[in-house]
Amino acid sequence: MLHLVGIGLTKADLPAGSLEICKRCALYADNYTTYVPQDRIDQIEYLTGRSVKRLDRSMLEESLPVLLGEAENKDVAILIGGDPLIATTHKIIFIAAKKAGIEVRVHHAASIITVLIGESGLDFYRFGQMCTIAKWTDNYKPVSFYETIQRNLASNLHSTVFLDYEISNNSSLELSKAIRILREAESSYNGKIIDDATSVIVMHSMSHHNERKMFTTIAEASGMVLDPGPTSIIIPAKLSDIEKEAISSMY
Amino acid sequence: MLHLVGIGLTKADLPAGSLEICKRCALYADNYTTYVPQDRIDQIEYLTGRSVKRLDRSMLEESLPVLLGEAENKDVAILIGGDPLIATTHKIIFIAAKKAGIEVRVHHAASIITVLIGESGLDFYRFGQMCTIAKWTDNYKPVSFYETIQRNLASNLHSTVFLDYEISNNSSLELSKAIRILREAESSYNGKIIDDATSVIVMHSMSHHNERKMFTTIAEASGMVLDPGPTSIIIPAKLSDIEKEAISSMY
Repeated sequence: MLHLVGIGLTKADLPAGSLEICKRCALYADNYTTYVPQDRIDQIEYLTGRSVKRLDRSMLEESLPVLLGEAENKDVAILIGGDPLIATTHKIIFIAAKKAGIEVRVHHAASIITVLIGESGLDFYRFGQMCTIAKWTDNYKPVSFYETIQRNLASNLHSTVFLDYEISNNSSLELSKAIRILREAESSYNGKIIDDATSVIVMHSMSHHNERKMFTTIAEASGMVLDPGPTSIIIPAKLSDIEKEAISSMY
Repeated sequence: MLHLVGIGLTKADLPAGSLEICKRCALYADNYTTYVPQDRIDQIEYLTGRSVKRLDRSMLEESLPVLLGEAENKDVAILIGGDPLIATTHKIIFIAAKKAGIEVRVHHAASIITVLIGESGLDFYRFGQMCTIAKWTDNYKPVSFYETIQRNLASNLHSTVFLDYEISNNSSLELSKAIRILREAESSYNGKIIDDATSVIVMHSMSHHNERKMFTTIAEASGMVLDPGPTSIIIPAKLSDIEKEAISSMY
């Protein structure tokens, strides 16, 4: 049997039931879609008395058949940062396992998606489609995030925007670069949704010791330098009274 | 200090760190926004050696000042089904605590929001605004959910639709009634988004022993009878190839 085990964002988030399951499993850590920090590996090795093997970018090609073969006869768990099945990779693993006739169980945990919604102070009903600002290169400058934010704002909805994340250094695209991309997209589309005074919520390394959460402006955010770690931003729509009050308490 | 402690959806979801915090807290369970089943109360009382007091609908008026007074001098925790801060009530409690000069810490856990997204097999980037189908009465027939679904579909986005939930019996509006309301809204708006053949994902009592998950049609769903428990539906937009493949494996 294959277990897809969410481990949440921090050591404290590890679900008690998942720990019990891990004690009887061969353990792998997904190091492909999210970075599982060494302290999480250490925690789970200590609590289960088992060693954890990291699965890197080559997992789908090389390790997955081996791992599925192993799961035919015993319990195998893949440890996943946040909540499983959000990343497409986990669905591909699920599909491959079912095709091989292996039963799959999913164990849920805290996810950055609801942490961002909840910690923002904004109403969850007022969030529109999520999007990502990807790193620009000379030849690849994706801007679809701009259309998403624009469409959300046209319906008076908030936008959760993930900043492109690199596993290798557990960091997102720098905030200043993301803001520059936002501004360049604005220049190109001229939708008049982003200027110096536009409000932006910056959420960095959420639930970690170096967490930063700021309700600020595009002008201010463009000059901010953050520690390494995952960063997301929210472009809020027009705030309701209760949202304004929540923001004044929660930041 | 006041702790808002997410306990996830099932016994297995309780985060290990939150359990440690609960051991030193006076414990209350939010029985106002989500139903915390008796087996969860029993679990936490057993594991902490402390008794848990349920907070019902009158909590904001009566119990909150008492609870906040208690939190001035010692650790107090409110146990919350799912992930805290999604419900407005928790933000109101947060705001009230901060106004009283009390420090608040939030402890995250698995949420129905990402469980629905992940277990659906659909791409999280393709979800639009969430909405709720409320129970209709003779004088109150809210239909804003229809406009939300319609707007999402116009942008080729999936819609998560919660069915109105009653704490007192830990059940949602019956699926058949919700489908009838959807159909009546369709008749009234005539947006041509809901008919017998429209696909719908039904997700019931997720993560529980009586979990049901079905990819079906409006016609089929209208005749389904489910056990008591919380129900949500997803009205999918046009499925991508990977979504189709995920659905064929995961249901």
